[in-house]
Amino acid sequence: MIRSIEWLGDRIRFLDQTLLPLEERYVETSDIAELADAIISLKVRGAPLLGIAAAYGILIGVQSFKNSSLQKFLDAFQTSFDLLSQTRPTAKNLFWALERMQNRIRLTSTHETQKLFEILCSEAAAIHQEDEVMCATMGKFGAELIPSNAVIVTHCNTGALATGGIGTAFGVIATAFSQGKEIFVYADETRPLLQGARLTMWELQKNGIPSALITDNAAAWTIKQKKVDLVIVGSDRIVANGDAANKIGTYNLAILAKEHGIPFYIVAPTSTIDLSLQSGNEIPIEERGGDEVFENFGKRIAPLGSEAFTPAFDVTPNELITAIITEKGVHHQPYESSLKKAVLR
Amino acid sequence: MIRSIEWLGDRIRFLDQTLLPLEERYVETSDIAELADAIISLKVRGAPLLGIAAAYGILIGVQSFKNSSLQKFLDAFQTSFDLLSQTRPTAKNLFWALERMQNRIRLTSTHETQKLFEILCSEAAAIHQEDEVMCATMGKFGAELIPSNAVIVTHCNTGALATGGIGTAFGVIATAFSQGKEIFVYADETRPLLQGARLTMWELQKNGIPSALITDNAAAWTIKQKKVDLVIVGSDRIVANGDAANKIGTYNLAILAKEHGIPFYIVAPTSTIDLSLQSGNEIPIEERGGDEVFENFGKRIAPLGSEAFTPAFDVTPNELITAIITEKGVHHQPYESSLKKAVLR
Repeated sequence: MIRSIEWLGDRIRFLDQTLLPLEERYVETSDIAELADAIISLKVRGAPLLGIAAAYGILIGVQSFKNSSLQKFLDAFQTSFDLLSQTRPTAKNLFWALERMQNRIRLTSTHETQKLFEILCSEAAAIHQEDEVMCATMGKFGAELIPSNAVIVTHCNTGALATGGIGTAFGVIATAFSQGKEIFVYADETRPLLQGARLTMWELQKNGIPSALITDNAAAWTIKQKKVDLVIVGSDRIVANGDAANKIGTYNLAILAKEHGIPFYIVAPTSTIDLSLQSGNEIPIEERGGDEVFENFGKRIAPLGSEAFTPAFDVTPNELITAIITEKGVHHQPYESSLKKAVLR
Repeated sequence: MIRSIEWLGDRIRFLDQTLLPLEERYVETSDIAELADAIISLKVRGAPLLGIAAAYGILIGVQSFKNSSLQKFLDAFQTSFDLLSQTRPTAKNLFWALERMQNRIRLTSTHETQKLFEILCSEAAAIHQEDEVMCATMGKFGAELIPSNAVIVTHCNTGALATGGIGTAFGVIATAFSQGKEIFVYADETRPLLQGARLTMWELQKNGIPSALITDNAAAWTIKQKKVDLVIVGSDRIVANGDAANKIGTYNLAILAKEHGIPFYIVAPTSTIDLSLQSGNEIPIEERGGDEVFENFGKRIAPLGSEAFTPAFDVTPNELITAIITEKGVHHQPYESSLKKAVLR
């Protein structure tokens, strides 16, 4: 399996996802600023993977202080926490992992920094391992919803590159395929950063899953002409009522699924769920620089002086979501109590 | 005004639209094969402009035979007709113009080739001039449907670059703007060939119309968040029942307009209407090479060995179209008799 991130005892090793599919280059770093930059520039991306990266980021941020005073260690923790918090605003998993690391320290009575560091190491490892297990579990739950001979549309990348395991939506597809179901996947290329073309097509190929690439605007016609059975995607933040933020274009697909009378599924671990927000309107939506649309691999595609509206995410209202698949099971409307139970139990 | 195509007496001059917005380069040719290549490679594009280009293409195809025998002249006509017919299958206007040129010859009693050539010259000029007038007329009819302070989404390019005048959908926008209405346009970038980013943004800027570029997959979120009032696009072929083929992604937008309860308008001259086809299912849809999606300005964005589904057009069913604006007026449901009247009167 692809290891898109690993902890090597004193540094992180991650796959630079901006170079895929042309080049499979791994970067090793023990510099938290380099990691933060890698997150901002999407070398490391994918909601669950951002949680894992943030946990390991804390480790590289505090490791130089494991023989320092408690105050210095805690200061380094806070600095690392703040730096990583400011990388990307939308994915809940990043904040969830940072808070989990913070709570682990708060709940510990020890004042020994060496011991605190070990506790954080095991917490980060647990976050990573649990994500792998959650992916496998979501894969199994979700695969039950995938019929044989399914024609599927997916968006962005939600596979091993985006998680610590087989993926979320992609994990469901891969699990159904490994169960022997015939499957055909149409992957949205996912402009502007082409995670579908670059990453999902790469993972589909690695898994031997029959597939074809489409432009995002071809999804409606593909659903109609190719008799697509379902749309399945991941999420960066799901709020209390079931509204779900995900890569720009997801809301578009949910509307298309409704129009064509096919199910629209979201797959995400419970670490994606944010019960502190009641509705999708409250989710902070990252807007990225216009250059991601104005330029294509360094070539300008729009006139100088153009404006752009460049939301990186959109919010799909819960009523357009047929089911939300977490590692706790398959959740249906109304989502409120079901999601709350999944998070709290 | 931009002259995207011109007849210079013995050759065509056209703007190479694949180089925009970075370079405004005009090509002159009296070689019909070069023109056919330019159409296939989208240097010359846009449904109404394809009609004009085809008419001029006939002229450069026959002009060497204007002092030859009638048979040789007619053979050259047929060869030119066939070559141009095989360039792009979806846009009705191209075939409409070729047939109009053919009918002009058939209806003439003269056997003098010099005279026949002059007749064809004036027919081609008429096709061009009429398109300019039709654009202005459609602009006026359509502008009545554009409220003040309108926020508009459009797709692909439908302006002076796509026609012999101010454009179809773009002409409506430009006319409303020139009437002093406040307007804001969100232009879909229109993957894979980015006609929205490259051409429409360029024309919007040339006209001083406030605008922003969006990725195609951002249309749903933009319509919702920016309170878009209407979607307006062109068409490559409208059939008897009102189903309309247009650039891939149009069907997508029509569904989004329905979901958000806003009007979805199509603007096209009657030369786009094909009464020989009853429903959109009969429209031949061009599928272009996978490389247009696999590669971006020469850089590979999908793994080698990938498949792609690359329809250049899709068909919007008539029930999703609020109105069709032609130079004859504004047509509403049911379209059948209204479109027939528009074509035949």
